Amino acid sequence: MGKTFKKIELVGISEKSYEEAISNAIEHASKSIHGLSWFEVSEQHGKIVDGHVTEFQVVLKAAFKLD
Amino acid sequence: MGKTFKKIELVGISEKSYEEAISNAIEHASKSIHGLSWFEVSEQHGKIVDGHVTEFQVVLKAAFKLD
Amino acid sequence: MGKTFKKIELVGISEKSYEEAISNAIEHASKSIHGLSWFEVSEQHGKIVDGHVTEFQVVLKAAFKLD
Amino acid sequence: MGKTFKKIELVGISEKSYEEAISNAIEHASKSIHGLSWFEVSEQHGKIVDGHVTEFQVVLKAAFKLD
Amino acid sequence: MGKTFKKIELVGISEKSYEEAISNAIEHASKSIHGLSWFEVSEQHGKIVDGHVTEFQVVLKAAFKLD
Amino acid sequence: MGKTFKKIELVGISEKSYEEAISNAIEHASKSIHGLSWFEVSEQHGKIVDGHVTEFQVVLKAAFKLD
Amino acid sequence: MGKTFKKIELVGISEKSYEEAISNAIEHASKSIHGLSWFEVSEQHGKIVDGHVTEFQVVLKAAFKLD
Amino acid sequence: MGKTFKKIELVGISEKSYEEAISNAIEHASKSIHGLSWFEVSEQHGKIVDGHVTEFQVVLKAAFKLD
Amino acid sequence: MGKTFKKIELVGISEKSYEEAISNAIEHASKSIHGLSWFEVSEQHGKIVDGHVTEFQVVLKAAFKLD
Amino acid sequence: MGKTFKKIELVGISEKSYEEAISNAIEHASKSIHGLSWFEVSEQHGKIVDGHVTEFQVVLKAAFKLD
Amino acid sequence: MGKTFKKIELVGISEKSYEEAISNAIEHASKSIHGLSWFEVSEQHGKIVDGHVTEFQVVLKAAFKLD
Amino acid sequence: MGKTFKKIELVGISEKSYEEAISNAIEHASKSIHGLSWFEVSEQHGKIVDGHVTEFQVVLKAAFKLD
Repeated sequence: MGKTFKKIELVGISEKSYEEAISNAIEHASKSIHGLSWFEVSEQHGKIVDGHVTEFQVVLKAAFKLD
Repeated sequence: MGKTFKKIELVGISEKSYEEAISNAIEHASKSIHGLSWFEVSEQHGKIVDGHVTEFQVVLKAAFKLD
Repeated sequence: MGKTFKKIELVGISEKSYEEAISNAIEHASKSIHGLSWFEVSEQHGKIVDGHVTEFQVVLKAAFKLD
Repeated sequence: MGKTFKKIELVGISEKSYEEAISNAIEHASKSIHGLSWFEVSEQHGKIVDGHVTEFQVVLKAAFKLD
Repeated sequence: MGKTFKKIELVGISEKSYEEAISNAIEHASKSIHGLSWFEVSEQHGKIVDGHVTEFQVVLKAAFKLD
Repeated sequence: MGKTFKKIELVGISEKSYEEAISNAIEHASKSIHGLSWFEVSEQHGKIVDGHVTEFQVVLKAAFKLD
Repeated sequence: MGKTFKKIELVGISEKSYEEAISNAIEHASKSIHGLSWFEVSEQHGKIVDGHVTEFQVVLKAAFKLD
Repeated sequence: MGKTFKKIELVGISEKSYEEAISNAIEHASKSIHGLSWFEVSEQHGKIVDGHVTEFQVVLKAAFKLD
Repeated sequence: MGKTFKKIELVGISEKSYEEAISNAIEHASKSIHGLSWFEVSEQHGKIVDGHVTEFQVVLKAAFKLD
Repeated sequence: MGKTFKKIELVGISEKSYEEAISNAIEHASKSIHGLSWFEVSEQHGKIVDGHVTEFQVVLKAAFKLD
Repeated sequence: MGKTFKKIELVGISEKSYEEAISNAIEHASKSIHGLSWFEVSEQHGKIVDGHVTEFQVVLKAAFKLD
Repeated sequence: MGKTFKKIELVGISEKSYEEAISNAIEHASKSIHGLSWFEVSEQHGKIVDGHVTEFQVVLKAAFKLD
């Protein structure tokens, strides 16, 4: 049946950058899912407090090989 | 690593309204997933029998905090 | 040739709710088209008069089996 | 120069339904903007607490005639 | 609460066709998930080696009934 | 007034392939509509029974010249 | 049941402009359909011959009130 | 903080063309907003009366520099 | 191998109309590319100076047959 | 009437990063608008001079609570 | 500067299937472009003559490594 | 004929950030194309190895003035 991948959707958060928000989500998810191979960003938001950006939030899909 | 959320995609059904279809899906999923925080509607369909709407079907994504 | 369905696009209107606007459109169209099987909502708008919503308007596609 | 309309984007909230969330936003905005004529729903989300939907949130655009 | 479905996202691969790539993904996923009912194709890609297509890759969502 | 085309939307079904599903829909529709000139695929779904794909379903628009 | 509208999809063509292509399609369709009320442009293409634009082609949806 | 622009959304109308509808909206808005720099068309519709196009309506976003 | 077309993406500009902006881009590109067959408009923008539209800008794809 | 939010659309610019471009826009807008709560990125562009990126430009929507 | 890829857009045609239409386009383009690595399908159309599908047309993007 | 721009599509890669991935692609392409003026990000992906992000990949369009 060849290879099959499954995609999951995650929301990562960082106070510093979208790159760190992505890494946070991938590293968090990797604790329970092995073999994540690639990701795709689908949305980028954030939180504002007192006129300052306090959180960068990224929605992404990450794919891993199904056993 | 901060907080990470995971999104799942559900299809809820009701004979009465989209609001009830959403609640049905969320309550059903909450039996096995704890900590659902928000949802986003992505599609709204329905079933027609003999010229009458018999089902409102909603596709939604719901997010919960990853441990 | 198997089954083939045709989709038509309708705009339904209600003073009360989107669910009623959908039912209105389906029931109206069913007077001349038999065998409507399902619908898909594509847009939701409405009319405002004097600061109050007076109409809920829904654009939907409905499908029926071709003879 | 004929008529010109301006569109604004609002987020309305209700504990009961999307229709009420829309009406809430329109009535709230109508306190400072006169002559709102129509609206278009662009997104539908909501909040979940303890496995139950507690808020229906709607994003919509509303248009009014420019003086 | 009526019926609720869950959708998962898969990537299937075949050297021959998109239909086979879809079947591969569905049959692979069916080994661990029971009751898959329908699927929806969202993307179609592929791999090229030495000027020849060597893989057809399909991204699809598949839905199954939640217990 | 020059040439004008009308587009209709169809859903075709095949047990074998999307190409056959398209041909089925076009040939079925051609029994009552003359002069279909081109088509555009808009969605591809399918049915799953017992872990196997049993139907390829295609949504397409087909255009014909208005008299 | 209130008012219901039906939308049809047309392709209009002109050698001069998109506005004329739209008018051509609407006037052509109006010969067999009464009560067209509004239209929405969905695509704009055209034909090129010997490095010159020879046709402006517009895809539009037009709506009329269902009896 | 560098330059920041704000975008507003307008609907312009003309009996003659989309270009005139755009100019009408921009000139109307320029009476109260200074420094509009560019616009982007997002939708094109129109009105039909007795089988003839009587209005070209354009939805556009226009941007101006924030003080 | 049958016919193959290649699409290129262009931005055309005119002080007068989108139709002229399209023609400008096609005629400019035709000086180096032979056999352009059709085009598809993807975006329409423009420039504003002192409250007046001074440029209509169109983004389009144009296709030509590969040798 | 519950809470209502209004969304505005901004374009922020930075020579260094999209995160700084977002912060620039939010801080600039916060000088006249109080209570901005969240933002959503909708587009990311930039300027190129002599083969080097000289500006990162971000289009975003920011929301604040209506009084 | 790391690796950079360039994407080109092609239209491939086959009388038999979309897979063959893709292969035709890739093999045709590979005569002048070396190192094509992957492709992504963006549209699927076709031609109809006398009520039968006579051409499957696929629009795809193909990527190759820049020297 | 006024100015005409051509857009090309590139994929840039960086181990550090999307900003660097963009700069890499633009600087690489600038070795053979003169006069690149602006770019637009269309997709953001990346590669994951052993639970860590190892590549940020950006898909972008860049435009240059046609001679």
